[in-house]
Amino acid sequence: MKKVLIDCDPGIDDALALALAHGDPRLDVVGITAVGGNVPLEFTTENSLRLRDFYGMTAPVARGAGRPLVREGINAGNVHGVMGLGEVVLPETATELDPRHAVDLIIETLAAAPGEISLVATGPLTNIALAVRKEPRIVEWAAEFVIMGGAYTRGNRTPAAEFNIMADPEAAAVVFEAGWTTVMIGLDLTHQARANSVVRTRFAGLGRLESELLTPCLDFYGRFPDYQELGPAIHDACAIAYLIDPTLMDAAPARVDVETQGRFTSGMTVTDFKAPPESRNALVPTTLDQGRFWDLMSEAFAVVARSMA
Amino acid sequence: MKKVLIDCDPGIDDALALALAHGDPRLDVVGITAVGGNVPLEFTTENSLRLRDFYGMTAPVARGAGRPLVREGINAGNVHGVMGLGEVVLPETATELDPRHAVDLIIETLAAAPGEISLVATGPLTNIALAVRKEPRIVEWAAEFVIMGGAYTRGNRTPAAEFNIMADPEAAAVVFEAGWTTVMIGLDLTHQARANSVVRTRFAGLGRLESELLTPCLDFYGRFPDYQELGPAIHDACAIAYLIDPTLMDAAPARVDVETQGRFTSGMTVTDFKAPPESRNALVPTTLDQGRFWDLMSEAFAVVARSMA
Amino acid sequence: MKKVLIDCDPGIDDALALALAHGDPRLDVVGITAVGGNVPLEFTTENSLRLRDFYGMTAPVARGAGRPLVREGINAGNVHGVMGLGEVVLPETATELDPRHAVDLIIETLAAAPGEISLVATGPLTNIALAVRKEPRIVEWAAEFVIMGGAYTRGNRTPAAEFNIMADPEAAAVVFEAGWTTVMIGLDLTHQARANSVVRTRFAGLGRLESELLTPCLDFYGRFPDYQELGPAIHDACAIAYLIDPTLMDAAPARVDVETQGRFTSGMTVTDFKAPPESRNALVPTTLDQGRFWDLMSEAFAVVARSMA
Amino acid sequence: MKKVLIDCDPGIDDALALALAHGDPRLDVVGITAVGGNVPLEFTTENSLRLRDFYGMTAPVARGAGRPLVREGINAGNVHGVMGLGEVVLPETATELDPRHAVDLIIETLAAAPGEISLVATGPLTNIALAVRKEPRIVEWAAEFVIMGGAYTRGNRTPAAEFNIMADPEAAAVVFEAGWTTVMIGLDLTHQARANSVVRTRFAGLGRLESELLTPCLDFYGRFPDYQELGPAIHDACAIAYLIDPTLMDAAPARVDVETQGRFTSGMTVTDFKAPPESRNALVPTTLDQGRFWDLMSEAFAVVARSMA
Repeated sequence: MKKVLIDCDPGIDDALALALAHGDPRLDVVGITAVGGNVPLEFTTENSLRLRDFYGMTAPVARGAGRPLVREGINAGNVHGVMGLGEVVLPETATELDPRHAVDLIIETLAAAPGEISLVATGPLTNIALAVRKEPRIVEWAAEFVIMGGAYTRGNRTPAAEFNIMADPEAAAVVFEAGWTTVMIGLDLTHQARANSVVRTRFAGLGRLESELLTPCLDFYGRFPDYQELGPAIHDACAIAYLIDPTLMDAAPARVDVETQGRFTSGMTVTDFKAPPESRNALVPTTLDQGRFWDLMSEAFAVVARSMA
Repeated sequence: MKKVLIDCDPGIDDALALALAHGDPRLDVVGITAVGGNVPLEFTTENSLRLRDFYGMTAPVARGAGRPLVREGINAGNVHGVMGLGEVVLPETATELDPRHAVDLIIETLAAAPGEISLVATGPLTNIALAVRKEPRIVEWAAEFVIMGGAYTRGNRTPAAEFNIMADPEAAAVVFEAGWTTVMIGLDLTHQARANSVVRTRFAGLGRLESELLTPCLDFYGRFPDYQELGPAIHDACAIAYLIDPTLMDAAPARVDVETQGRFTSGMTVTDFKAPPESRNALVPTTLDQGRFWDLMSEAFAVVARSMA
Repeated sequence: MKKVLIDCDPGIDDALALALAHGDPRLDVVGITAVGGNVPLEFTTENSLRLRDFYGMTAPVARGAGRPLVREGINAGNVHGVMGLGEVVLPETATELDPRHAVDLIIETLAAAPGEISLVATGPLTNIALAVRKEPRIVEWAAEFVIMGGAYTRGNRTPAAEFNIMADPEAAAVVFEAGWTTVMIGLDLTHQARANSVVRTRFAGLGRLESELLTPCLDFYGRFPDYQELGPAIHDACAIAYLIDPTLMDAAPARVDVETQGRFTSGMTVTDFKAPPESRNALVPTTLDQGRFWDLMSEAFAVVARSMA
Repeated sequence: MKKVLIDCDPGIDDALALALAHGDPRLDVVGITAVGGNVPLEFTTENSLRLRDFYGMTAPVARGAGRPLVREGINAGNVHGVMGLGEVVLPETATELDPRHAVDLIIETLAAAPGEISLVATGPLTNIALAVRKEPRIVEWAAEFVIMGGAYTRGNRTPAAEFNIMADPEAAAVVFEAGWTTVMIGLDLTHQARANSVVRTRFAGLGRLESELLTPCLDFYGRFPDYQELGPAIHDACAIAYLIDPTLMDAAPARVDVETQGRFTSGMTVTDFKAPPESRNALVPTTLDQGRFWDLMSEAFAVVARSMA
């Protein structure tokens, strides 16, 4: 099993990503860290904790950064609902947060098993950037580093920028320049992962997972104007899917620079597929095998649903 | 016939654009102004003059700006050859340039027939920006305004920016904000206009036009690495084709902002198709009817070839 | 006599600068061009024309650019009054503007006497930048080039930027990089030229010049909060004074770069007195001999007043 | 006694600042944290530790951030020598660093005594910014916050920017916007604190402090070209002096914004003394009582020297 530490901002698609990570037999989630992003930190932290317990996961959950590295925060409450899971309110939980700050949980977890743990980030990259600056060696310790974020053609938050990068461009710049290879699962890939009505028929019969989470969340998420035609894009789950089976995607190496200074392009991931090998810092998946992706999702969700019964 | 004033920087695709404009019976070219761009101003001016005479055109030709509005110049000699037409050197000409600066030819030509003349720009927008600043009323006088430039997904000079806009972002910013509707024929459209080997069979039998210009220019142009797979994109001719018959293209209204300040995105045309109607400043063709486009080209070239015989 | 072409945006201190230029026997004003700045172009043009006639000058007056090279315009109506001369309205005039655009008057005047005419600009540098781009040779034709603008410590429009540069930073960048030596008469110098109550006693007895222009203008100008303690700074007249007698000032060579991209520093003239000689592009006066300056002003005003009597 | 936690990058003037803080009876140094700055982190950390032991201080010393929050690092080895103390190499020490990261030492120290400890930073603001982001409550916990950094007229590293701010503009932006009042001891103030030859006569007779540190360091420091005329500016000691006795300085409230985006002005502290009270975020000392300052220094150095005997 591949050990994975997940930094996230649940968020509806983060919730589905966590279910995939928990349900797939090839992953072992060893930690969950929350960051402010889709909704404010207090909600992403509480959602992380409640999702952990709702799914029956056991990994520690830690609270991280409540605002971006340098600039003011933004959020995506219009897409994910005020508290982050549409209108879903998961049961309160009696379990407690890990006492450590997310940055320390990340550093200490990776330090304890250098080369063994994959790090994945599905929200703004504030926690990761702070961890890189506090302990630069995590770049070597992480077995691999995968993010959901960015795009190589067009953004969603603005015409140029995807939300997770736009929410903290300076953190993203730190992370892409840190010295590791960032696997950038961006919008060009994730817009191929649409939970349309055909896909959603596969979630019937998943009990509480379906009735208490999947259906109300996806109904809410699907009402966002951009998602009405093709169905909502389940961005974050694609990053987990890559960890499970990278053969689901075609990918190309590239140089990615994060724009932090433009008037209209702040937060853009400027992606140069023609960059010379020595300047490449990213691997960019471009096409998704949609059939196999939804097979993966369905099987993992079934595992989670059974364990919740 | 539609009267058209062409501001250009020949350049191989500019040369083909001029041939299309001259050969198509629906256009009447009333002026040609040169700007520094693909190659330095001295060459784009001389090429404009020689192409005018080579094709048998009669419009006045004027010299314009030799460097961008604010920043240092760049050029595309790597694509178009040092002098702009690959290795082609057209016959010297005894005719003379119009004594006016391009900016004054543009202003005076449009002033003489308000609402009657279409303005098209296929190079960096320096001349147009200078004209707008010197005489803001040209914005009302131009019957329509069409450029080849920009992109709404990816650039060519950089991952974010297309050459003509990158070559003078401040001029492009002036032009897009001038108050008219800019028809932006960008890379997403022009990359559909490939002079591949099938297309080129249609140019056989065009006499001197083919042997002295089309074949050597397209051979040279096609050797540029980006063009080897699908054939060279005949960018500038698409702008002329739009003037002749806009039904060749599907187009969508948009707000276009030109990035002038980014570290990695300078010269990008940030295109917002979801902008509210009151903030739109551009019409952006997105798909090209390739069959009809090449019919248009072939027919116009045949007219030019016959007149040269 | 030194021939001088004055590009200005009257403006109260421009008005005094014109009087100085006209009254001093060592200068011969050969042209006046107006640019939008302190107040909109229609007012700076009309004020230029009326001041010319009020003083009895004979130089042609031409209208120039109404808005900055790239960005939106700002003005300083709060300092100079809505129409530019406080509450003063000069007599209407029957004389006419030169039919040429200011840019062409500048180019043609300098072209007619290369090396003989000094060019001075006391407003935003839009006209000068447009002229440089339309005819780069004016840089060689101008005998010297002096501006009122900028600062090497602190601004006035913002903490970092002086008004004339802030009003058109891109034009200023073009002008400073044009290849000539710009004599930058900035705030550090002009704040030494205060028309305080002692100074103003010297203007008594100047007849209509005093009663219809100097007194009401300076009363108005002096009410601006920044000027209440030490008296209003007669910025633009310092540039003319430099042309008359550069020994009035100590000056140091420097490299000046105009910031066009900062969030808080746009329009700043970043002045490096330690720049190596080969990168210097400016001469920056730093200290003013105030006694001799006001002698110069008083004598010139007396000449103008007499001629008006 | 006022408790003080010192974040620094020794550095010659940091070394003198530590001596002042240790020798003055009104301060109790409760912690020293090192940041990369004048020289790389490994040297500033080692220098902090050795200076602590050399002076006989007892506060814990912790290692902090080795590179700026977002961008690449710069240093000032040309001013302070490769290892930071000119050519001085202090005795090796057997004592150990605090095991905590500087960020955690700062947070935990302030958390343990809210409202009781003054925080002072005399290097780039990376550690402070990281601490603010990890634990925003330190802004309330710090009794006061004083930095050496910035300027309100001209810089030293560039014409616009002072070294400490230029070295990490994003961190400085975070710190100035954190919600506390930053006392900005900038170059305009510190250039009044010159260790000229008259001043230095007062350091005679200070034994090892003088012979092993003050004299060789100040000889080295004084050879920097900018310091040859008036003597080296002892920047960092001014921040400590303010903590000891703020009546040594006149100060004015202001709004300070840190430029992070300019081409020529990055790292500038744009200081608006006219900002409305509700937008002020800083107190800016402007004039130094030099006599009393050097009295303070001399007395503190004497105390340190006696304790080392």
